[in-house]
Amino acid sequence: MDRWNGRQQPLLIVVSGPSGVGKDTVLQRMRTRGLAMHFVVTATTRPQRPGETHGKDYLFVSQDRFREMIQRGELLEHALVYNDYKGIPRQQVRQALDSGKDAVLRIDVQGAETIRRLWPGALLIFLAPETEEELVERLMRRSTETPDRLELRIHTAREEMKRVDLFDYVVINRDGQLEATVDTILAIIVAEHHRTHPRQVTL
Amino acid sequence: MDRWNGRQQPLLIVVSGPSGVGKDTVLQRMRTRGLAMHFVVTATTRPQRPGETHGKDYLFVSQDRFREMIQRGELLEHALVYNDYKGIPRQQVRQALDSGKDAVLRIDVQGAETIRRLWPGALLIFLAPETEEELVERLMRRSTETPDRLELRIHTAREEMKRVDLFDYVVINRDGQLEATVDTILAIIVAEHHRTHPRQVTL
Repeated sequence: MDRWNGRQQPLLIVVSGPSGVGKDTVLQRMRTRGLAMHFVVTATTRPQRPGETHGKDYLFVSQDRFREMIQRGELLEHALVYNDYKGIPRQQVRQALDSGKDAVLRIDVQGAETIRRLWPGALLIFLAPETEEELVERLMRRSTETPDRLELRIHTAREEMKRVDLFDYVVINRDGQLEATVDTILAIIVAEHHRTHPRQVTL
Repeated sequence: MDRWNGRQQPLLIVVSGPSGVGKDTVLQRMRTRGLAMHFVVTATTRPQRPGETHGKDYLFVSQDRFREMIQRGELLEHALVYNDYKGIPRQQVRQALDSGKDAVLRIDVQGAETIRRLWPGALLIFLAPETEEELVERLMRRSTETPDRLELRIHTAREEMKRVDLFDYVVINRDGQLEATVDTILAIIVAEHHRTHPRQVTL
């Protein structure tokens, strides 16, 4: 039974879901559980917000540096999200997997689709709101944007909700049930490490 | 998102593994966790042992009654195991699933293969020992049988170990780690209830 002794191959885990569903909060909470996973820090060109730490919340880079990262193939995937670039540093993911650690990506739905296409063996988890109305409310509540941009966000979120079928699992992130959401995601990861036929990802 | 609100369709869960791996102990422990699942009680023609309760550990039935159950199609699956008949009462499983509860079957590897063939949407979990030597030791330790029958059991267990590929998940039941084994099985069940494309079983 050597094949199943110890942990199996590390997983490339994507946590995604529509804008406003609470991906950041869920990932932050997962991080505090002290698990042996690497939480990949996304590179972005958007301005750092108060309370955010460079290298922890995001890698804040200039437009020029971001273009360089694209050209040198340093990004696993990148996209223009509401006028700002976001991308997944390839090296971080590779190092995590090489050291036997699961790599967890927080990524929008469009990016998750790219990951699925390039690495069919990735594990894709879709965070969903309890209802679409709740999602719209959350977006409106936290919005600091112009009505036009808010409307675009709501439209995008509605479109993103339709892509759930491309994912392996769907977890509802209920209001006030953050721990339950995290517990479910962790159960999925435990289960996936016990598959008889493991997912395979080669970067 | 109505599709994922509340629990999904109930699962037909098979916990199997080679003779001697500790299926009974694991299932007994799962039962004490007070979960909303139905643990299906197997019908058997083997004599009741001290400490066993009819209707809880097994349904102890006569050879005649067992033959009748076969003829009337009352069994989902049955097999001759070491000269005794064992079978899964269909009505119990159907009632559990109809009431929205997961149905958990404890079954030998041969029976699990039958279930897989008849209901491809069943969830199959293989309990494995840490090593094959450990399995043999356990069989020898607990054996009250003649050397011949013991040898047959060991041979069968070795054959059973080769069938793991037909299962969805493999969980190692380490000595003294019963709670960890149960936790892993429960994580698998939680995860399976969050699949985007649920398994389907119709009895």
